[in-house]
Amino acid sequence: MHASKYHINTLKEAPAEAEVKSHQLMTRAGMIRKAAGGIYTYMPLGLKVIRKIEGIVREEMNRAGAIELLMPVVQPAELWVESGRWEQYGAELMRIKDRHQRDFVLQPTSEEVITDIARNEIHSWRQLPLNFYHIQTKFRDERRPRFGLMRGREFTMKDAYSFDRDEASAQASYDAMFEAYMRIFTRLGLEFRAVAADTGSIGGTRSHEFQVVADTGEDLIVYNPNSQYAANIELAVAPCLLAQRGPATETLSKTATPDAPKCEIVAQQLGKPLTDTVKSIVLATETDGKPAQTRIWLLLLRGDHDLNEIKTGKLAGFENGYRFATEDEILDTFGCVPGYLGPIKPLKPVTVIADPTVANMSDFICGANDEGFHYTGVNWGRDLPEPQVADLRNVVAGDPDPQGGQLAIQRGIEVGHVFFLGDKYSKAMGATFLENDGKPAMLQMGCYGIGISRIAAAAIEQNHDDRGIVWPRAIAPFEVVICPMGLHKSETVRNAAETLYQELCAQGVDVILDDRDIRPGIMFADWELVGVPVRVTIGDRGLKENLIEIQTRRQETAAKIPVTEALAHTLEQLKSL
Amino acid sequence: MHASKYHINTLKEAPAEAEVKSHQLMTRAGMIRKAAGGIYTYMPLGLKVIRKIEGIVREEMNRAGAIELLMPVVQPAELWVESGRWEQYGAELMRIKDRHQRDFVLQPTSEEVITDIARNEIHSWRQLPLNFYHIQTKFRDERRPRFGLMRGREFTMKDAYSFDRDEASAQASYDAMFEAYMRIFTRLGLEFRAVAADTGSIGGTRSHEFQVVADTGEDLIVYNPNSQYAANIELAVAPCLLAQRGPATETLSKTATPDAPKCEIVAQQLGKPLTDTVKSIVLATETDGKPAQTRIWLLLLRGDHDLNEIKTGKLAGFENGYRFATEDEILDTFGCVPGYLGPIKPLKPVTVIADPTVANMSDFICGANDEGFHYTGVNWGRDLPEPQVADLRNVVAGDPDPQGGQLAIQRGIEVGHVFFLGDKYSKAMGATFLENDGKPAMLQMGCYGIGISRIAAAAIEQNHDDRGIVWPRAIAPFEVVICPMGLHKSETVRNAAETLYQELCAQGVDVILDDRDIRPGIMFADWELVGVPVRVTIGDRGLKENLIEIQTRRQETAAKIPVTEALAHTLEQLKSL
Repeated sequence: MHASKYHINTLKEAPAEAEVKSHQLMTRAGMIRKAAGGIYTYMPLGLKVIRKIEGIVREEMNRAGAIELLMPVVQPAELWVESGRWEQYGAELMRIKDRHQRDFVLQPTSEEVITDIARNEIHSWRQLPLNFYHIQTKFRDERRPRFGLMRGREFTMKDAYSFDRDEASAQASYDAMFEAYMRIFTRLGLEFRAVAADTGSIGGTRSHEFQVVADTGEDLIVYNPNSQYAANIELAVAPCLLAQRGPATETLSKTATPDAPKCEIVAQQLGKPLTDTVKSIVLATETDGKPAQTRIWLLLLRGDHDLNEIKTGKLAGFENGYRFATEDEILDTFGCVPGYLGPIKPLKPVTVIADPTVANMSDFICGANDEGFHYTGVNWGRDLPEPQVADLRNVVAGDPDPQGGQLAIQRGIEVGHVFFLGDKYSKAMGATFLENDGKPAMLQMGCYGIGISRIAAAAIEQNHDDRGIVWPRAIAPFEVVICPMGLHKSETVRNAAETLYQELCAQGVDVILDDRDIRPGIMFADWELVGVPVRVTIGDRGLKENLIEIQTRRQETAAKIPVTEALAHTLEQLKSL
Repeated sequence: MHASKYHINTLKEAPAEAEVKSHQLMTRAGMIRKAAGGIYTYMPLGLKVIRKIEGIVREEMNRAGAIELLMPVVQPAELWVESGRWEQYGAELMRIKDRHQRDFVLQPTSEEVITDIARNEIHSWRQLPLNFYHIQTKFRDERRPRFGLMRGREFTMKDAYSFDRDEASAQASYDAMFEAYMRIFTRLGLEFRAVAADTGSIGGTRSHEFQVVADTGEDLIVYNPNSQYAANIELAVAPCLLAQRGPATETLSKTATPDAPKCEIVAQQLGKPLTDTVKSIVLATETDGKPAQTRIWLLLLRGDHDLNEIKTGKLAGFENGYRFATEDEILDTFGCVPGYLGPIKPLKPVTVIADPTVANMSDFICGANDEGFHYTGVNWGRDLPEPQVADLRNVVAGDPDPQGGQLAIQRGIEVGHVFFLGDKYSKAMGATFLENDGKPAMLQMGCYGIGISRIAAAAIEQNHDDRGIVWPRAIAPFEVVICPMGLHKSETVRNAAETLYQELCAQGVDVILDDRDIRPGIMFADWELVGVPVRVTIGDRGLKENLIEIQTRRQETAAKIPVTEALAHTLEQLKSL
C-alpha cells in the first residue's frame, strides 16, 4: 500500500469525551470515527486491525473443529420469549418493531437462534458433538456508552455454541475452546490471564474469563505468581487468615468511642490494630410470599476487608437478590444508628454471618448497638452465639494461597469468556436429540465469546506510550512503514524505497510506503501514533554511505544498516517482535 | 474438510412458501435457514458461498483503488434528517429508538454516514479522489419479504462511495467502478449484462445496472445481440416504428363497436390489424398550489404497445408524481366511460401526448368518446390537432435498433448498480473541500452497490437443474467432493480417498471428503443438490482396475481415469470450468 492512495488522517487532539487511552489514541490515529454515542465507523486503519483479529480467531476456531455460520443481527422476539430472556434482559436489549408491529431484537448474543437451529438440525447422537460459531455485529443499548471500542453499543463479537450428548462430552468441548482461546490470545501477542469467573446472567455452572492485563482494566484478577491459579476477584475464594481461634484473654467491656462510625477511627481511638476490629454490614432480603416479608441480616468482616457483592448474592436466602438495609430498618432492628452496630444483643433477632477470618477472631472489637460506644474483648461463644460462617470478602494482595505462596492482584480487561451452559437453553426451548437407546435427551451446551472490537482497545490499553499506540505485530494495521525522506525530490530515495517495498511485499509483509509530500517530523509522528511495529527510514544522506535506518516502535534510536541488508534486517526485526 | 466434521443437512422438500428455485434449493441444500420472514441464518455451506463472493468483490474493489472501512448498522436519525431521506424514505426504512428515545435507523445504504465522514475528513483537493467502501449487513423492511435471499429484509451488500473534485473526475471514478464491476461479475462466473438504468429514488444523473441473466428475473433487459447496447426496459428508448406519417386516404367515420372496450376486440370487430388501433390512457397529476389542482392527461399508445411508467413519470408536469384517473374524472372530462375514449373532441380540454409511433400513424382507429363507438380513418391535423410527442412505451422484442439490427429482450436479476450522484448529498449535508484556488467546492459523489447475498440467489436462478444447484466454480461452497464408496469397510478406498484429498489440499483446491457412513445414492444426491462442480468417486471395484471416476456437475456420465492421473485430471477439469 502507498500512503498517497490510502486514507491517513491523524488528529492532534482527542475529543474531550475520550476518557481512556485506547479511545483517545484510536480517534487520534484515525482508526475510528464516532457516528453516535457508542457507535463507531471503523476507518480503514481500524478495520485492518479488526480483520487481523478476526482472522486469527477464525483460524483457531476452525482448527478446534468449530464450524462457522452467520446468524442474523435482527432476531424474532418469539425465540427470546421462549428462552425467557425477553423478560429477563433489561434495557440493554435493543427491542424493535417491524412495519407489521412484530417484535424483534438486535442480538447481543445468539443463544436463542442457535438453539432453534440445533433443535431443527440435530436429530441424532451421531451428529454430535457440534460447535457452531459466527463473527457478527452485536448491539447492547448501554445507558452511558463510553470508552470507545472498550464498551460500545454496536460492536463485533465472535460467539460460539457447542452441543454435546452429555456433560462429560460437553466438558471436553469446553476444554477444547479453552485451549483454542489460549492459542488465540497468545497469537494476538497480548499479555493475558485465563481466570475462573462467575457465570453471571448467562447462567450455567462453569466459566472462565480471558483477561488482557492492563492497569486501566475494570476487572480485578486474583492470581498466584508461582502457580496457574487465577480467578476474577468476584469469584476468588478468600482464605481464612487465622488458622484457629485464639483463647479469650480479655473481658467484654463497653467503651466510649465518640464520633467513631468507622473501624479505622475506632482502632485509632483505642490504640489497637485495624485487624482487631470487626465491621458490621446490615443487608435486607425479601421473602417469596405475598406480601413479601423483609428479612434483616448482619454480615461481619474484619475491619480491613471489603464485602464481595457477588459472593453475598450467592448466600442461602439471597436467591431473590438483596439490598443494603435502610436507616429505619437498622434503627428498628438494632435500636442504634449505623456506625456503632454489632452482633451482641440487637433489639430484634437477626441472622449473623461472619467471614471465616472473623469467625476465628478472639478479643475483638465491634459496635455496641449504642451510639458512641464499642465493645472490646469480644469472644465468640462466651459473649455471643457462634455465627454462621461464609466467605464474604474480596481477596487482598498478600493473602496466602492455600496451595502455597501468596496471592497477588492485577487489573484486567475481559476480552473472552467461556461458559458451560448445561441444558439451560435446550430445556427452555426443547432442544433434544435421540440417544443411541432411541430415547430423546437434552442437548448439553456451552457458549464461548470473544469481543473482537474490544480486543483492539484492550491491546492499546496494554501497549501504548506518550507517542501513541504500540501494536503487537500480529494485529498491527501494517507491520512495516517505509518513510522515504524527500521522495518527491530524489529519484535515488524513491527507487531505494520502492525496491525495498516490493521486496517486502514479495515476502508477504504487510507494508506501507509513505509517499506523501510531508515533512519527516510529521511523518514520523503519524506512524508512531498509529503504532506500526517497524519503521524503515531512507534518505539521501544515508544512501550516500549506503545506509538506511531501521527502528522498532519500542526502540528509542534507529540502527543504521547497509542497504544490501535492509530486507534481511527488517524481516529479522519483525521475527523478533 | 471432512464431511463428518462438518454440518451437512439436506432436505427432501422445500418449505411451501419457497416460490423461487434459489429459495427452494438453498433451503433444501442446507445453505440457509429462516429465522423470521426475510431474515435468514447463513448455514455453513451458504456462508462459504457468501464469503467467496465477498472475497472476489473485495479483491476487485481494492484493485480499483477503493478503500475498505466499516460503517455501523445502526445510524443516527440526525444524519438522515439532514439528507432529507428520513422524510422521503417510506416504511422500508427500519426506524428504531434507543433507551433514551433517540431515533436511529438500521441502514439500507450509507450515503449519510459516508458524507458525514467525508465532510469531516476531506479538507483539500489534494486528498481527492477517494473511494470508500464497506461490506455490511443491510436492512430493508419489505412489506412482503419472499424469495429467500433474492429479496430479504436483512441482507449483505457492498456499497462504495466516491468523492471527486469535479464532474470529469467523478466520471472517471464512475468508469473505474464500472470496469471493476465488469471484472467482478466475470470472475464470479455469471452470465450478466451491464445495462443503462433509471436512477430512481437514489437520484443522480447517470446509472448502470448489472443484471444476471435468468428467466426468472424480475427485470426486463433490452439489448442488441449484435452490439454493446443494453438498457433496462424502464429506460430503453423505444424507437418510432413509422419512419414518416402516411397520407390520409380514409374519411373519418364513427363506427359502432359494441362491447369492445379493448383495442384487440375493436381490431377483431373491424377486421383490421391491431397496429391500426390507438390506445387511450387517462392520467391525473396534482399541481403544486394550495389547494392542489388536478390536471387530466391523455396518453396515446399503439394498440399493441404498453405504457412505460418510469418514462411517464419523467414527463414535464409529472414532477409530483401521477396516478391513473378515476372513473368520475374520466366521465367528467370525456363524457364517456373508459374503453371508448379518444383524443377527438373530449368534453373538456385535455393535454394529449402521443408516443412517436402513434404520432406518425394515419388512417388509425381510436375511441369516439361515446360508449360503443370508435372512429376509423382518423388522421392528425385533419381530424384533430397535432399532439405533443414523447417516448411513452416499453420496447418490444423485434423493435429496430436505430444503430442497426433488432432489439431483443431477456429477463435479468439486478445484482449491482452504479450511480453518478453529483452533489445531491454533499449539497444537502454541506460536504465541501478547499479547491486549489482556496475556495470551498462541493464534493462530487458516486455510489456503487453490489448485493452480495442476492448474487448467491441469482447464481442459482441462472445455474440449476432438476437435481439441484450447479455453482460456478468461483463461488461453489467446495470445488471438489471426493465420494469414497464403503470407506468405513475398505482401507484401500479410505487410503486412496485420503491421498487424493491431501494432494488436492496441497494444490489449494477447496475440497471436501465425504466420510459419512451413508449409502452412495444418498451421498451423490446430496452433492448434486449442493452443486459442487467436480465429483470424484472412489470404490473398491474401480481400484481393482486402478480406476477412479471423475464427473463435473453438468456432465451426465463419469469419466474413468487411472488412479495415477486422478490429481492431474481433477485439476484439469477444474480449470475447464
